[in-house]
Amino acid sequence: MMEHTKTAATDFRGIDSVVESGGLFGIWNHPLANQMTYFGLHALQHRGQTSAGIVTSDGETFKAHRGHGLINYVFSTKEKLEALTGNSAVGQIRSATQSDQRDDSNIQPLLFHFNNQSIAICHNGNLTQALTIRQKLENDGAVFSTNSAAELLIHLIRRSKADSFQGSLEESLQQLEGGFNFCLLTNDGLYGAVDRHSFRPLVIGQLANGSYLLASETSALSSIGATYVTELGPGEYVVINDQGYHIYPYASNTQIALEPMEFIYFSRPDSDIAGVNVHAARKQMGRRLAQEKPTPTADIVIGVPNSSLSAASGYAEAHHLPYEIGLIKHQYIGRTFIQPTQELREQGVRYKLSAVNSLIKGKEIVLVDDSIVRGTTVKHLVKILRDAGAKAIHLRIASPAIRFPNYYGVNTTHTSELIAANYTVPELNELFGSDSLGFLSIEGLVDSIHSPFTQAPNQGISLDAYLGQYPASIGDYQEEFEASLTPLQKKILKGEFRDE
Amino acid sequence: MMEHTKTAATDFRGIDSVVESGGLFGIWNHPLANQMTYFGLHALQHRGQTSAGIVTSDGETFKAHRGHGLINYVFSTKEKLEALTGNSAVGQIRSATQSDQRDDSNIQPLLFHFNNQSIAICHNGNLTQALTIRQKLENDGAVFSTNSAAELLIHLIRRSKADSFQGSLEESLQQLEGGFNFCLLTNDGLYGAVDRHSFRPLVIGQLANGSYLLASETSALSSIGATYVTELGPGEYVVINDQGYHIYPYASNTQIALEPMEFIYFSRPDSDIAGVNVHAARKQMGRRLAQEKPTPTADIVIGVPNSSLSAASGYAEAHHLPYEIGLIKHQYIGRTFIQPTQELREQGVRYKLSAVNSLIKGKEIVLVDDSIVRGTTVKHLVKILRDAGAKAIHLRIASPAIRFPNYYGVNTTHTSELIAANYTVPELNELFGSDSLGFLSIEGLVDSIHSPFTQAPNQGISLDAYLGQYPASIGDYQEEFEASLTPLQKKILKGEFRDE
Amino acid sequence: MMEHTKTAATDFRGIDSVVESGGLFGIWNHPLANQMTYFGLHALQHRGQTSAGIVTSDGETFKAHRGHGLINYVFSTKEKLEALTGNSAVGQIRSATQSDQRDDSNIQPLLFHFNNQSIAICHNGNLTQALTIRQKLENDGAVFSTNSAAELLIHLIRRSKADSFQGSLEESLQQLEGGFNFCLLTNDGLYGAVDRHSFRPLVIGQLANGSYLLASETSALSSIGATYVTELGPGEYVVINDQGYHIYPYASNTQIALEPMEFIYFSRPDSDIAGVNVHAARKQMGRRLAQEKPTPTADIVIGVPNSSLSAASGYAEAHHLPYEIGLIKHQYIGRTFIQPTQELREQGVRYKLSAVNSLIKGKEIVLVDDSIVRGTTVKHLVKILRDAGAKAIHLRIASPAIRFPNYYGVNTTHTSELIAANYTVPELNELFGSDSLGFLSIEGLVDSIHSPFTQAPNQGISLDAYLGQYPASIGDYQEEFEASLTPLQKKILKGEFRDE
Amino acid sequence: MMEHTKTAATDFRGIDSVVESGGLFGIWNHPLANQMTYFGLHALQHRGQTSAGIVTSDGETFKAHRGHGLINYVFSTKEKLEALTGNSAVGQIRSATQSDQRDDSNIQPLLFHFNNQSIAICHNGNLTQALTIRQKLENDGAVFSTNSAAELLIHLIRRSKADSFQGSLEESLQQLEGGFNFCLLTNDGLYGAVDRHSFRPLVIGQLANGSYLLASETSALSSIGATYVTELGPGEYVVINDQGYHIYPYASNTQIALEPMEFIYFSRPDSDIAGVNVHAARKQMGRRLAQEKPTPTADIVIGVPNSSLSAASGYAEAHHLPYEIGLIKHQYIGRTFIQPTQELREQGVRYKLSAVNSLIKGKEIVLVDDSIVRGTTVKHLVKILRDAGAKAIHLRIASPAIRFPNYYGVNTTHTSELIAANYTVPELNELFGSDSLGFLSIEGLVDSIHSPFTQAPNQGISLDAYLGQYPASIGDYQEEFEASLTPLQKKILKGEFRDE
Repeated sequence: MMEHTKTAATDFRGIDSVVESGGLFGIWNHPLANQMTYFGLHALQHRGQTSAGIVTSDGETFKAHRGHGLINYVFSTKEKLEALTGNSAVGQIRSATQSDQRDDSNIQPLLFHFNNQSIAICHNGNLTQALTIRQKLENDGAVFSTNSAAELLIHLIRRSKADSFQGSLEESLQQLEGGFNFCLLTNDGLYGAVDRHSFRPLVIGQLANGSYLLASETSALSSIGATYVTELGPGEYVVINDQGYHIYPYASNTQIALEPMEFIYFSRPDSDIAGVNVHAARKQMGRRLAQEKPTPTADIVIGVPNSSLSAASGYAEAHHLPYEIGLIKHQYIGRTFIQPTQELREQGVRYKLSAVNSLIKGKEIVLVDDSIVRGTTVKHLVKILRDAGAKAIHLRIASPAIRFPNYYGVNTTHTSELIAANYTVPELNELFGSDSLGFLSIEGLVDSIHSPFTQAPNQGISLDAYLGQYPASIGDYQEEFEASLTPLQKKILKGEFRDE
Repeated sequence: MMEHTKTAATDFRGIDSVVESGGLFGIWNHPLANQMTYFGLHALQHRGQTSAGIVTSDGETFKAHRGHGLINYVFSTKEKLEALTGNSAVGQIRSATQSDQRDDSNIQPLLFHFNNQSIAICHNGNLTQALTIRQKLENDGAVFSTNSAAELLIHLIRRSKADSFQGSLEESLQQLEGGFNFCLLTNDGLYGAVDRHSFRPLVIGQLANGSYLLASETSALSSIGATYVTELGPGEYVVINDQGYHIYPYASNTQIALEPMEFIYFSRPDSDIAGVNVHAARKQMGRRLAQEKPTPTADIVIGVPNSSLSAASGYAEAHHLPYEIGLIKHQYIGRTFIQPTQELREQGVRYKLSAVNSLIKGKEIVLVDDSIVRGTTVKHLVKILRDAGAKAIHLRIASPAIRFPNYYGVNTTHTSELIAANYTVPELNELFGSDSLGFLSIEGLVDSIHSPFTQAPNQGISLDAYLGQYPASIGDYQEEFEASLTPLQKKILKGEFRDE
Repeated sequence: MMEHTKTAATDFRGIDSVVESGGLFGIWNHPLANQMTYFGLHALQHRGQTSAGIVTSDGETFKAHRGHGLINYVFSTKEKLEALTGNSAVGQIRSATQSDQRDDSNIQPLLFHFNNQSIAICHNGNLTQALTIRQKLENDGAVFSTNSAAELLIHLIRRSKADSFQGSLEESLQQLEGGFNFCLLTNDGLYGAVDRHSFRPLVIGQLANGSYLLASETSALSSIGATYVTELGPGEYVVINDQGYHIYPYASNTQIALEPMEFIYFSRPDSDIAGVNVHAARKQMGRRLAQEKPTPTADIVIGVPNSSLSAASGYAEAHHLPYEIGLIKHQYIGRTFIQPTQELREQGVRYKLSAVNSLIKGKEIVLVDDSIVRGTTVKHLVKILRDAGAKAIHLRIASPAIRFPNYYGVNTTHTSELIAANYTVPELNELFGSDSLGFLSIEGLVDSIHSPFTQAPNQGISLDAYLGQYPASIGDYQEEFEASLTPLQKKILKGEFRDE
Repeated sequence: MMEHTKTAATDFRGIDSVVESGGLFGIWNHPLANQMTYFGLHALQHRGQTSAGIVTSDGETFKAHRGHGLINYVFSTKEKLEALTGNSAVGQIRSATQSDQRDDSNIQPLLFHFNNQSIAICHNGNLTQALTIRQKLENDGAVFSTNSAAELLIHLIRRSKADSFQGSLEESLQQLEGGFNFCLLTNDGLYGAVDRHSFRPLVIGQLANGSYLLASETSALSSIGATYVTELGPGEYVVINDQGYHIYPYASNTQIALEPMEFIYFSRPDSDIAGVNVHAARKQMGRRLAQEKPTPTADIVIGVPNSSLSAASGYAEAHHLPYEIGLIKHQYIGRTFIQPTQELREQGVRYKLSAVNSLIKGKEIVLVDDSIVRGTTVKHLVKILRDAGAKAIHLRIASPAIRFPNYYGVNTTHTSELIAANYTVPELNELFGSDSLGFLSIEGLVDSIHSPFTQAPNQGISLDAYLGQYPASIGDYQEEFEASLTPLQKKILKGEFRDE
């Protein structure tokens, strides 16, 4: 342990810090629980690179290993993995917010020991009433050692008067608002839970030997040779133990509202969400975008590596345009990378993305990107392509403009971070310096995903980021949300503005 | 953070794990609080080498750096120390018990954040009712993240209904039994507290610039150029803040009972305890031992390096015998040392202590050791000296035989670890293979220390380890103590046996 | 330094060990020579990940920092880079052969100090008479401290009787056979040299401030904002000093023979070789392959990530087939990755490449790979696609079958490593388990590259790997080459066999 | 490997850099050669802490592991040691001069591979004509990769025309001047060699199983259970192979001249040199000093820890004064220790040595130190003791004043580093601020050591440092020596001054 904790007591009102994106994995009753969890988390590594950890249990003794960085850095030797004996495990990889990324105490899974029980827990997502609940507990004498929603749940469970662990868990989950997935491991079972809107998936898989497991994406299942069983619905939790698995509801007021960024950006292309393949959905977004926002005079299509490549190839195919590798992503940038100074950047030092000049020069380019948050990258790319001699640059974004913050775990909790909260499409086009700019429509997004929830509002897709309509209470964030509304956001909320 | 936690829920009844030997340091209002704490802890490093940590505060923001190993390993670069800005600090070095030495969560100082307050805390010693208190708190819903007495105190403080921090602290200290020293740092002040018997010192010092500080030994004061102000008496705590320092009692039922092992073994020779210099006391123990257990035919005196050298030179001087360096301690053995296999040891590979054959050969040797716990080292030394050609070996131990476990922080909590709990002196002599064996008498020990507490029982020295008379309740240990009594211990308790 | 050298004296006849693939960079007279070299090497990182190093000079003092692993691992802190002061630099990244990858002494650049001179040197490639020259030098009393061609050149230079450094360099280069690029830095200048066939590029660039630099690929130029000046031709070397740059010939018997694997596999897609863009050449190979070996009934085209994606998209476009991301490459596999055991692999644990089942299932697939060496990967991929439910798998390789070893730096120096040295295409198809197999023809390759050397044999492309016709002497390898000829190779050499 | 080499070509005329203090170990034909070497070097660790290394051989394959720091840091895991298979080994620990301490290339043993042979080599000492020999070899085309005398010997051996390795070794050793010990390991044998004056010991030992070994001190023998066989005399070398050991002379013009600092300071107290125990010699120096320079009014005697403790106890016993631990050496200062700033030191921060105030206050102190080089430490100690309240301080140095530089390996090669090259004893007393100052006489030193070489000049003790009479040529240093002579040195050389 080597850490720097820099926290004023007052920082804890900063509710950002509990946003937790990442990937979860859990397995029950497998002789190689440690290795399965390691390879499972490896397949989820794209969901977070700040820290990783595994806790195993043999039903009595719990063993933990956690650390900063990629999972293969944390488990830098085989010995570290082999020391985690036991036949059940939970693990997490995580993307920490800037403020807590050097803070060891938040690395998960957390492990708590009591005189009568041990519990390992990990989670992702964001509880919208975390601050309120924590204050209430603290006033009642509770002592917190981390800044994490996972510890909050443990406190609720331990204070519950229900007469079984399952009862306490249910009672505690009912008190939570927001977007979250939890995995818990006790002596008696492996537990998974999702919020009332099932923003992010938690899937159940099974190995050839019969062992059940939990994972944030189906890519983790296929990576370890497991088959997909089902995924948890809104307001559900699962108990996996020696009797198999059993899914229970803990809430009745539920409503499916899948996070669209999982399709657009977060998930691995080979994952399926609600039965929909992510690569296929992205490619369809690209095709649809080509129909909605065509570029009749363009010469070639290029995508921003790596998340936009599916959409770009879809766009190219629909348009019968050549799909080219016009931007190269440097593969070997790690956490310790020395960044070029401003002076060097001005001298033309490029360290993340390079343009292939001989392809770009004199061409009319379609540049497909998956989404726009701050807009800094896209502005930079337009400049790079101009420098490489592009004749014209048509920006095509394979998702709708993000107009509103997300409070359920996407890490875009501030209006001030969202460029499209302030500008219309023509204004953005001017800001970015592109020759034309087109976003996929909201209908186009929903149609491209083509979810099976045909009866649910918006086919079960959450449109909060586009329309400001929040499926779940935003709790402690309400005040900040209202105070920071931009004129454009106000118009959208009143129905006075909508992208064509 | 890279750790292995191996704990079954039931391990928590193993009350050993909360024994905490180590050294504390705290400083208030000094522009170089980080460096002063670093050098202060450096001078206390002999009290524990398992982990080290410092927390600093500027009155608002707390910063922590902690890690396994020596303090100059934990602070391996200047940057790590300089990052700890602020003008107040607490720090700890620690000697962990085997079971928790790889457990990061117990590395102190612990740092807790609440919505209305931050607290850094460190301690040493052992609470004899820790288990009972923890169970009570857990049953009431408390969640513990470490296995430490320091966290216990925080829980008590936070649950207290007193209307000030000082009031809560006082109320909480009153609930604790055993031997302990605490240092706490809050936004408002630096606090130090000792148990009702003042087993181990906590001294107050002052720097030339007026800053007050707390330390476990006076050696830390002289190392940083501070002068000794006073030390806390039984049942006292001190508040240091911008108004200076103020000592308060928190308990009335107090009784001074200094831990004799601080004089015999733990403290650095240049430290003073209750005004008594440790080297001088040890030398006097050696002189007195020479009177009590003389060796008229011996040729030379040698001491077991390094803690017995003062006593050995005292013995030699009193006896007018040459004091020789007959045993060499290898200086460079660190934590990562590769130990020789049993096979190599049998072939004569020595890695900790070597005998100086040319000095030993053919001589009648007095070997002075400071104390005997398990007896393994002394048995090994007798063999080494025999192999080196000693004609005769007279073992002289500069303290009384340790017959009973200690429950207040000395890490000898089990009767089974104490060889003298089972054997009389003649039996031990036979076991060790020495030609004669003599211990310092209890009276000799008390007289040699010559404490200023002339009116207190045993002149304020705790004799629990020699006579089984415990000055403080042994709480949760009572049952185990009684169950494990040996025939010899029973005789001693009944007054039927006492070393001549 | 922490190394394991495992070398028997006799290993040095093992001439593999001097094969050196990697990337070179050099810069003269730039105030940020250290950073420019760092970012330049970063853009060459794909050429080797085993070790990295930079040597800088201020014209008098040379400073070096080298280490195992990626360049951003070797330069893990800014301090390490900033310590390399000076305005000139050379650097290398390297891919070591298995046998020497833990041997520190071979990490380049090497730095030699003499009483009258310091020289830093790095290289890539393979000298085909290294053993003969070294034996001759050793017999004459020379002492070697590394196993590297770079040290060989230094010995030749120091033993030369020429009356200038440039004269000695020229004389020494004339004694070398094989494929090589060298960068040398002395107090007086930066030197670059290539072999008589210019197998691999060494390009000269210039920064806005006028500084000249050398690099193995143009991608390093564009990454740091430099413009392309020219590249060294066969048998040429360049002197860069305060007077600018000057190219000299050192040999007359030269013949251009570009290594085709630089186009097919090694170089970054955005690099240009002899004016030909690598991505464009690869895409054209894919298009040509579609013409030569069509797949009329196929449903989709997928490429093996990442080096085959250009060719795959070319194939798809030429064929009007959808180009899909059917195989996912795990991004986060580093050197310390824990590999799944055989048992786990059999249970389906996939750690390098995953198939996207929902895309593959029931489809007739074209799988485009860039080349085949051992054939193990392609066999594995066919199995993965079959497991994912592919109806048919048509393997299309976007380069000709590699039938002969390469001795000029490609690391395929043994016939036994080359599956196509033994089997015809139909036999390979059966071995791989594919439904059909097609390679690009040699003519197709040469035409797709479309080099400007229209008058040179094979348009200046080396066909040694396909036809066993070696443009340069294979020196010490001749005996082994002849002894290991397979029946198929013999037929090819006699002109009795050639792929249709 | 992570290093910074900072060397201008011209630095190589700086002849300091080849001074090499350290410890050597070698073993032939032992199944645990790696472990024996590890533990042997461990017992020599006091001779150097900058780097450590071991090379093992099974008669064919050589394996090396080397690194910066203590041996148990370099071999931080058992695996690293176990990887060094083979039944023969050489190892070195080393104390680098400031300039090369971060230079990996000088870490020994060096390992050279030739087509017909591998050689591992390590050494300590200093060749006084290294520069001349190196220049001659370089002019003849030799390429050096290190800055070490060991590589020089390899070049000489490889260029020798003798018809056996032993012949070449003999021929090469004859060309060397100065003070040196070498250990070499080849496929055929283990070789040890010492200079013509045998300045420093190289002893031969034997294990119970019959294996022979070489070591720099007998402490390494006793540490691993080996018995002393003999030590090499002036101008001798030993060949150890399967036929046992055989000692040969390589030179006839020899003269025993033991380095007195080995007795005074360097060696471990339990070592014997030429049959003389080091602790016993030191104690006798203390006794003799008490006779020569008595302190009739003193109260107590204290020694500077740790090297002066033997002499101090001898002084105390001879004088019937109490020997006290008045200065405490901080045990835990490692290489990475953060040093207090000047500001902190002025505020009284002590980090290396602390005075025990309660012992010192009001006393008349005899402070015994082993020797004085720069005089900075002793000046500091006088101040510390004064601050602690000493009434008077009598400095007693248990060796003669060092008036001249040493060129044979002691690292005091510059007159400017020697305070006693400029000042007489009364002047020094004033400079140090002591109340009286007394050195041991040269005769006192020679008598105290009481070597068996009663017929040799000065009983075989080298007096160069005291009288400027150099037993061996000082070669390349002659010019600098003469140019830097101080008035006091000139008087001594002319016989016009000598300490009373």
